[in-house]
Amino acid sequence: MPRFTSLAELHAACRELPEGDDTAAAAVAERQARLTKPPGSLGRLETLAAWLARWQRRPMPTLEHVQVLVFAGNHGVTAQGVSPYPAAVTAQMVANFSAGGAAINQLAALAAARLDVIPLALERPTRDFTEMPAMDEAEFLDAVSVGHGAVGAGTDLLCLGEMGIGNTTAGAAVAAALFGGGGARWAGRGTGVDDAGLARKRAAVDAALARHAPLLGDPLCAAMALGGRELAAILGATLAARRRGVPVLLDGFVCTAAAAPLARLAAGALEHAQVAHVSAEAGHRMLAEELGMVPLLDLGMRLGEASGAALAVHVLRAAVACHGGMATFAEAGVSDRS
Amino acid sequence: MPRFTSLAELHAACRELPEGDDTAAAAVAERQARLTKPPGSLGRLETLAAWLARWQRRPMPTLEHVQVLVFAGNHGVTAQGVSPYPAAVTAQMVANFSAGGAAINQLAALAAARLDVIPLALERPTRDFTEMPAMDEAEFLDAVSVGHGAVGAGTDLLCLGEMGIGNTTAGAAVAAALFGGGGARWAGRGTGVDDAGLARKRAAVDAALARHAPLLGDPLCAAMALGGRELAAILGATLAARRRGVPVLLDGFVCTAAAAPLARLAAGALEHAQVAHVSAEAGHRMLAEELGMVPLLDLGMRLGEASGAALAVHVLRAAVACHGGMATFAEAGVSDRS
Repeated sequence: MPRFTSLAELHAACRELPEGDDTAAAAVAERQARLTKPPGSLGRLETLAAWLARWQRRPMPTLEHVQVLVFAGNHGVTAQGVSPYPAAVTAQMVANFSAGGAAINQLAALAAARLDVIPLALERPTRDFTEMPAMDEAEFLDAVSVGHGAVGAGTDLLCLGEMGIGNTTAGAAVAAALFGGGGARWAGRGTGVDDAGLARKRAAVDAALARHAPLLGDPLCAAMALGGRELAAILGATLAARRRGVPVLLDGFVCTAAAAPLARLAAGALEHAQVAHVSAEAGHRMLAEELGMVPLLDLGMRLGEASGAALAVHVLRAAVACHGGMATFAEAGVSDRS
Repeated sequence: MPRFTSLAELHAACRELPEGDDTAAAAVAERQARLTKPPGSLGRLETLAAWLARWQRRPMPTLEHVQVLVFAGNHGVTAQGVSPYPAAVTAQMVANFSAGGAAINQLAALAAARLDVIPLALERPTRDFTEMPAMDEAEFLDAVSVGHGAVGAGTDLLCLGEMGIGNTTAGAAVAAALFGGGGARWAGRGTGVDDAGLARKRAAVDAALARHAPLLGDPLCAAMALGGRELAAILGATLAARRRGVPVLLDGFVCTAAAAPLARLAAGALEHAQVAHVSAEAGHRMLAEELGMVPLLDLGMRLGEASGAALAVHVLRAAVACHGGMATFAEAGVSDRS
């Protein structure tokens, strides 16, 4: 597994991104215009087929090897009382993933996707970022590298998600550092904190922004100081997917915040990614807007675990099935518009 | 197959509707609270599991026999120049459905659903409703009865859809009669009419509303005078589903307009139905709002054919998979919130 050995090396990798295949995307649009339906009437199923083709670099995209990657991490900021659940739940949920009892187990199976869950040093939570940077450079690069190396060979669609008690606070802090506004703009109720807990989350975000202000001009330093290992791994996996021609479905608020530094480092860096589902978590809709992304689904979910991403796989499968399986007007003997 | 022999008999059937099973729905809510996730974090997947249980009348709903029913009809109002496609396309598309080349063939297969396409007297279009009622009572009751009889034995979820050149004009006229406002409120571009075509659609709706005003106080008479055979069949199938404990996914604008008379005849008559996808067709979002229904998907589709309904099956499968397959906190040894 290649390992990033310095922030400078990672910076460079984040700025040298391959473009998509315009020819493949144009071929999809040309075929869609000949299929037996009014032009544009399949809406996003048409543009998603072209998007898959663009990033898979082939005019007939496939979804035969869908991978769901869930990274798990623990967070020192839980000391600030930002979650109603004890931090031990992160490891307990990883065991639940292994046993097949979590939502993502059901949803990945339904999507005929391979599920890989990668716990990241759960026994060593990140530091409480209200007091010091969450990770040092080596810890951050380790986590990014694990994510970068976790994209399976032959994967043709990658669904990313996370598990980590306390990580909506980390996601809010990263979003605030990247897009401005403080805890009041970005902190939400996460797994369900009460009003006092929400106030503590906002305060934790604001304290972290103040403490680490000199670092936050660099998106990667923001991810290192305010994020978490599972967020860093998502960034690494999103980067690896771009380099290897794999389209990405980002799950919810934390997952989108985790990938967002890439977009701040290079315009268009997330064009190979879609926001799968807009979370009920307060900041997600705003975060998607900041990134210029329109989520595929809006079903009031706020679970994480890549649950929204796994659900959106069916939308992409529908896009591919219609694109590949429908007859053209000529083939079907259907009269086109006059 | 039972046949409705008078409007009075159909009226009575529309007003004697079985209620859902509150006990089954409550059992779902109770189990959902014990599953390994924050309360409510699966959003609509949780409420949809309860909705399926309520109407299937069992605490563990199933989706083993999903049926997609597409009704096709021809419309005399095409004489008014309301579609860019010739009326012959309705029959050509029915042949395309039989050959497996349409979008719904791909989407029904992906949803592991049985697909039944039922053409309704395509050789005898309804009359041009700008001049006389689209159907007489016998024609209307025939079509309603065909729909009522088309719900398969053992179906545990019904997806409804339609095909009929000219039928967005019929749908708009029905919606206008039921909810007020004229062609300007309800007519949209359908398969893609230009501005002049849109003006003709609006004028056709307004002419029909004026001509048939004395009839339109009765929702069934509105469906008879302004609708079409495929719309009447959708009404019949929706009614049959309610009587037999089958939840329904309504597709787009025309399909929702077709079922809407039931809601005007009896409050709660569409509680066993969901709007699957909000069509890009102009009036659909408003129509769903008038009915108090929140569509499950919003992907810019406007094809009909039950395409949006078939796509939403995956959302329901996800709801059922999570409800049935997830571990409880106790089973998984995961700590609940403090």
